Amino acid sequence: MPSASASRKSQEKPREIMDAAEDYAKERYGVSSMIQSQDKPDRVLVRVSDLTVHKADEVVWVRARVHTSRAKGKQCFLVLRQQQFNVQALVAVGDHASKQMVKFAANINKESIVDVEGVVRKVNQKIGSCTQQDVELHVQKIYVISLAEPRLPLQLDDAVRPEVEGEETSTSQAVFRLQSGICHLFRETLINKGFVEIQTPKIISAASEGGANVFTVSYFKNNAYLAQSPQLYKQMCICADFEKVFCIGPVFRAEDSNTHRHLTEFVGLDIEMAFNYHYHEVVEEIADTLVQIFKGLQKRFQTEIQTVNKQFPCEPFKFLEPTLRLEYCEALAMLREAGIEMGDEEDLSTPNEKLLGRLVKEKYDTDFYILDKYPLAVRPFYTMPDPRNPKQSNSYDMFMRGEEILSGAQRIHDPQLLTERALHHGIDLEKIKAYIDSFRFGAPPHAGGGIGLERVTMLFLGLHNVRQTSMFPRDPKRLTP
Amino acid sequence: MPSASASRKSQEKPREIMDAAEDYAKERYGVSSMIQSQDKPDRVLVRVSDLTVHKADEVVWVRARVHTSRAKGKQCFLVLRQQQFNVQALVAVGDHASKQMVKFAANINKESIVDVEGVVRKVNQKIGSCTQQDVELHVQKIYVISLAEPRLPLQLDDAVRPEVEGEETSTSQAVFRLQSGICHLFRETLINKGFVEIQTPKIISAASEGGANVFTVSYFKNNAYLAQSPQLYKQMCICADFEKVFCIGPVFRAEDSNTHRHLTEFVGLDIEMAFNYHYHEVVEEIADTLVQIFKGLQKRFQTEIQTVNKQFPCEPFKFLEPTLRLEYCEALAMLREAGIEMGDEEDLSTPNEKLLGRLVKEKYDTDFYILDKYPLAVRPFYTMPDPRNPKQSNSYDMFMRGEEILSGAQRIHDPQLLTERALHHGIDLEKIKAYIDSFRFGAPPHAGGGIGLERVTMLFLGLHNVRQTSMFPRDPKRLTP
Repeated sequence: MPSASASRKSQEKPREIMDAAEDYAKERYGVSSMIQSQDKPDRVLVRVSDLTVHKADEVVWVRARVHTSRAKGKQCFLVLRQQQFNVQALVAVGDHASKQMVKFAANINKESIVDVEGVVRKVNQKIGSCTQQDVELHVQKIYVISLAEPRLPLQLDDAVRPEVEGEETSTSQAVFRLQSGICHLFRETLINKGFVEIQTPKIISAASEGGANVFTVSYFKNNAYLAQSPQLYKQMCICADFEKVFCIGPVFRAEDSNTHRHLTEFVGLDIEMAFNYHYHEVVEEIADTLVQIFKGLQKRFQTEIQTVNKQFPCEPFKFLEPTLRLEYCEALAMLREAGIEMGDEEDLSTPNEKLLGRLVKEKYDTDFYILDKYPLAVRPFYTMPDPRNPKQSNSYDMFMRGEEILSGAQRIHDPQLLTERALHHGIDLEKIKAYIDSFRFGAPPHAGGGIGLERVTMLFLGLHNVRQTSMFPRDPKRLTP
Repeated sequence: MPSASASRKSQEKPREIMDAAEDYAKERYGVSSMIQSQDKPDRVLVRVSDLTVHKADEVVWVRARVHTSRAKGKQCFLVLRQQQFNVQALVAVGDHASKQMVKFAANINKESIVDVEGVVRKVNQKIGSCTQQDVELHVQKIYVISLAEPRLPLQLDDAVRPEVEGEETSTSQAVFRLQSGICHLFRETLINKGFVEIQTPKIISAASEGGANVFTVSYFKNNAYLAQSPQLYKQMCICADFEKVFCIGPVFRAEDSNTHRHLTEFVGLDIEMAFNYHYHEVVEEIADTLVQIFKGLQKRFQTEIQTVNKQFPCEPFKFLEPTLRLEYCEALAMLREAGIEMGDEEDLSTPNEKLLGRLVKEKYDTDFYILDKYPLAVRPFYTMPDPRNPKQSNSYDMFMRGEEILSGAQRIHDPQLLTERALHHGIDLEKIKAYIDSFRFGAPPHAGGGIGLERVTMLFLGLHNVRQTSMFPRDPKRLTP
């Protein structure tokens, strides 16, 4: 096999690597010169996924990676991979291929990218190991377009995070295609509902919620911080009469948490909305948005879901319409009935959240529900108290498979009450002056919430670690690649 | 006028503020109690934009801000504003309103949010000062929902950046609605073209392009940096066979540039794409994406464009299909003909870019064009050299109204050539080892580019400062709100 630094010739005149005088196929294989946009050939490249019996007996060009190769006497079987699809290709000594060409093909490093010309042939017996089971490609020409070095480096390995040899690439492709779909469905749904997308700054002059868990940035001669949430900015847009806004962007948390569901940088899908009379108007919009995402994924991403399920089997995600809404006190009653001792104003621990998820699934047959009316004591100062019960608040979390994916609330839009609640929480008013002042010039009642993209992806697919649903995860110990 | 801290009663029993015994309308006005989601009334609120002659003589409820108020004897004219729409409302002493009620209405602070019940009445003479010119609202009830303090603070003023009294709110709404549209059209177009949206990390362990102009972050016990570009991550996704990717997210530049077009944090619309044989395949996709954005804006956002034009008049944005592509040497010839002296390998200065934009507009009647084949000497080390001319490169910028909005190139996908080019640029190989290693395992030829969202918004609308198209601009001197 020639090395990557070997000299190259033009694509149509591949380099000879064997005893040329003997080789009647010498023009039919080799390492192409680097593609530097020398030419604009009118050659059409066919997608591997399009190689079916409909193309039987056609001569096609395909660009794909060498997934595996296996030489056997006068022939060599390659599996050619393109994204999540692959096809078997056969190079056999005969009219088109010489024994040197078969040897060349057999020696191409795995993962190299090749251009192959071949005839699509129907096979008698299905090829179980390939996605294209009914055909194989009889190779007439093969040129290496980009040569892979002999092994994958740790770093790239890391990025695709394999768990089962051979399946990792397809799984990874499927996970992130589905994640792209979540973002698309989120925005599509909200834009149809009349929301406006906003862009909020990530470098801020003061820590959003009092200063804990915030990353510091050197900003010219001063310090600045990385935003822990776009909440203040979403609320300012509501005060500026945008009425319904959303944003998608990075959220930063300097928490030294090393769990399956915490990242120091994650993607927040954030919503904020003015309502007329009751924050349930907002809760219903958010829940419906999630339902539209679930339905869209199940409709448009079945292939991806099945690909992931092959490596990580899991029950299909279940949800109700309309979404189940439980009040916190009802959840407490269910937990107590199951033997858990908890105070009325105590927050849910992670194990109790999971247990509650199981109890809800048993009773209501849903993996998605809203938990409403959290105790005021366990929520941030800006949460609107429940006017009917001073120990409750107009706040809610949403859960998927027993794990929290969204936290939200009606926000206090009255500067006087906001001041009172901040004092009650022992917050230094000077530090949140700008926040409180935002509401002094007429603020509509509003509510909102923030969704963690990696968690939604993980829980929808029944995976067990957000690092599987973040391409380049960031945690206290991990900052590369 | 009651102060914000005045006691409140329930919405249906507004507080009396005058001599109650005399006031037959006392139940028909007042300051509502804070909306804490006490009730879910079935009252329907009508949009101001829906107040037309079709609703003549109907009784409607409207929630809006008091934009202006003017008392005149026994009546008070209010202009009620909802987003970019407004309507005249009349409170007149009569069956429904007492003189106390008229006085109450006249004294409501501007920008307060009110719920108004009124009859829609056709007017004989168009009301030129309102968007709803054919009707006015004869008020029967008026309750303050959220009271504004007497004046706008500097801070909020700042956020909406007024330039002409009264029009600023509508202009601001329109600018950012159109900006939301740019993001939507960008993604819609790319998803239809088969692109996958990716999320790239913003906290990185090493400076992307050698270390200059990068913000430093304290990351637990170490230092990290804010990403100046998602380019490395986009390219890694191409190496992982995603083929066509895009991302939208913040980009950070620690440049002490105080110009009309530089921000330290801006929103990047980034594209990267594997191609078959020629980087023009990618250039055409990017240019077509921008054309689809321009067409979509002109089709779906005429109202917003006209609203902005009212305050900031400008020529409609012109573009050709297919997009004009000029080579750098052609541009040089045009500039030299116009009297500019420039070397063949010299970069364009900002004034020369603008002049070129004018020359191109005169000659080709387009505000949008591609400048292709930049001198290799003025582009970053990872730019693919032109195989036919060693002084040129496979790189391009795109321009709107004579200002650069996108910079892109075919990237070198061969580790050996990449190493050579880095050494030629005097770059420490150790610092870019991870980058070079990304290409050792079979990389398809690829190209891409990054678009600045704020610049596209500014130049499409013919505005003159990116601070007008960033809700919360960040520059070396500005970090709030």
